[in-house]
Amino acid sequence: MLAVPSFHDIQKAHLRIKRMIHDTPVMTSSGINHITGSVLFFKCENFQKAGSFKFRGAANALLSLDEESASKGVATHSSGNHAAALALAAKLRGVKCFAVMPHNAPKVKINAVKGYGAEITFCEPTLRSRESTLQNMIAKNEAVFIHPYNNFNVICGQGTAAIEFLREVPDIEIMMAPVGGGGLFSGTLIAAKAVHPEMKVYGAEPKNADDAYQSFRKKRLIPSVKPNTIADGLLTSLSELTFRIITDKADDIFTVSEDAIIEAMRLIWERMKIVVEPSAAVPLGVVLENKAFFRGRKTGLILSGGNINVEALPFQGV
Amino acid sequence: MLAVPSFHDIQKAHLRIKRMIHDTPVMTSSGINHITGSVLFFKCENFQKAGSFKFRGAANALLSLDEESASKGVATHSSGNHAAALALAAKLRGVKCFAVMPHNAPKVKINAVKGYGAEITFCEPTLRSRESTLQNMIAKNEAVFIHPYNNFNVICGQGTAAIEFLREVPDIEIMMAPVGGGGLFSGTLIAAKAVHPEMKVYGAEPKNADDAYQSFRKKRLIPSVKPNTIADGLLTSLSELTFRIITDKADDIFTVSEDAIIEAMRLIWERMKIVVEPSAAVPLGVVLENKAFFRGRKTGLILSGGNINVEALPFQGV
Repeated sequence: MLAVPSFHDIQKAHLRIKRMIHDTPVMTSSGINHITGSVLFFKCENFQKAGSFKFRGAANALLSLDEESASKGVATHSSGNHAAALALAAKLRGVKCFAVMPHNAPKVKINAVKGYGAEITFCEPTLRSRESTLQNMIAKNEAVFIHPYNNFNVICGQGTAAIEFLREVPDIEIMMAPVGGGGLFSGTLIAAKAVHPEMKVYGAEPKNADDAYQSFRKKRLIPSVKPNTIADGLLTSLSELTFRIITDKADDIFTVSEDAIIEAMRLIWERMKIVVEPSAAVPLGVVLENKAFFRGRKTGLILSGGNINVEALPFQGV
Repeated sequence: MLAVPSFHDIQKAHLRIKRMIHDTPVMTSSGINHITGSVLFFKCENFQKAGSFKFRGAANALLSLDEESASKGVATHSSGNHAAALALAAKLRGVKCFAVMPHNAPKVKINAVKGYGAEITFCEPTLRSRESTLQNMIAKNEAVFIHPYNNFNVICGQGTAAIEFLREVPDIEIMMAPVGGGGLFSGTLIAAKAVHPEMKVYGAEPKNADDAYQSFRKKRLIPSVKPNTIADGLLTSLSELTFRIITDKADDIFTVSEDAIIEAMRLIWERMKIVVEPSAAVPLGVVLENKAFFRGRKTGLILSGGNINVEALPFQGV
């Protein structure tokens, strides 16, 4: 069983990756505060290197490897931000990165992974094909598998966003992060609860991919069955490690409709003038659907990333 | 004839509006530097209040009025950012704003002007109808007409962006601003040349709306005839005052193709993760089309605004 990171592990990760990552800005929007009636702070991981918080975990995983392991390179399967983040982190450490991607992954994401110099092997868009392709690849080249969230060092890296967030805005009452595989949420829970034990920390999940919500409620790991949400970063299910951390530490998990996710994303684009992907808008979607709950409370939302295909946006004509 | 502002006038404007405006961030992008081979700095006026640099000029115009004039309110005609900026500045000073807008103006812009509490009178989408409707309105309510760029105080306000820019990045070698009516470019020329007389300051204009380029070359004011560009903030022609300033001070004006404007806008969205309108991308379009000229040079570009209809974007499927 994988060990659960402590806050000290996350602090060490922060020291380790500090010079490699961006200390991303915290933004506010008086327009969105006016609409929601709450006092919101946005940690802008869309400005992180490779376009998402995933770079924190990838950087920490890479820098935690000893020379010999690192020399073989790293490998992962991902259709999204983790592969790009790992590819960039590997490039910066000067080692190889092998990525298994489904052949129908968005071209923009394939191009990003390629652009950072990773070697891509395509597979069928099924979990079985992904895993077997990865196994074959690792057997061949002995690269170190870096799981996108069921990984101690990755979770430590993701938790560093909350450390920066609370340094910049120390009096946040509530913190909320989107939940896909649960790496960001796990790291956020450990860090935020350690800094301010009385803080409420919530997960935000699409109703149409609510495995974390179900698992949290029923206290057993229930993977998603055919999740179908515009928040393409949140299609994955919790892992053994993230399930344990979330069950132990989370105050609750909110679920949110697809309409609210799109409305939230549109508000962020139009009012804050920044590009975020749908997954990043999920916590604001929760605030929009639960205005009474968040009214007047200082709430910190993690904008997880900004990688989106600008040719296919979900905004409908008015 | 209107007086030409001095650098001292712009400095006074900056003191006047400082607490009302955002000192917008300067961003960089290693990805875009890599693509262009130059060293670019972006002054992000898309994050300015009301979504564009226009708020600087509008705020300065409003705060320069004495009590009695201000009490009658202000008026303008505009289909775009100036009306929204003036409406917000008037609201913050607690006076009325009257805006004449063509009935076919983008709904998103009409809503912004309404949202800031201005009283809108619709007109036909011709210059003649705009001007006569405005005359009637002013005759009725005695509001003070604030021209979007043929106005001393407005130009002083627009010049304040360059002051902040050069405070943050003092060693810029080249500065470039988009040119529509020429208010931003005029203010930038006066401020930048005063701070660093040896700095090169260029205007950036769509080929399809190149009245400033033509006027600068031929040394006489040549208004646009049927300009047709995606950069909807740059459809207007120079005025008497901005023509005089630009002719006197500009180092040159570059023109740029529609394709390069769209490519530049896409790069800013995808690489910098910020929302900018097409007009704001025109200077980067110039860099893309003149890579050899800008290679290795520290160049400051003013991202003029971020007001765009997210339902109708120019990005084509790959």
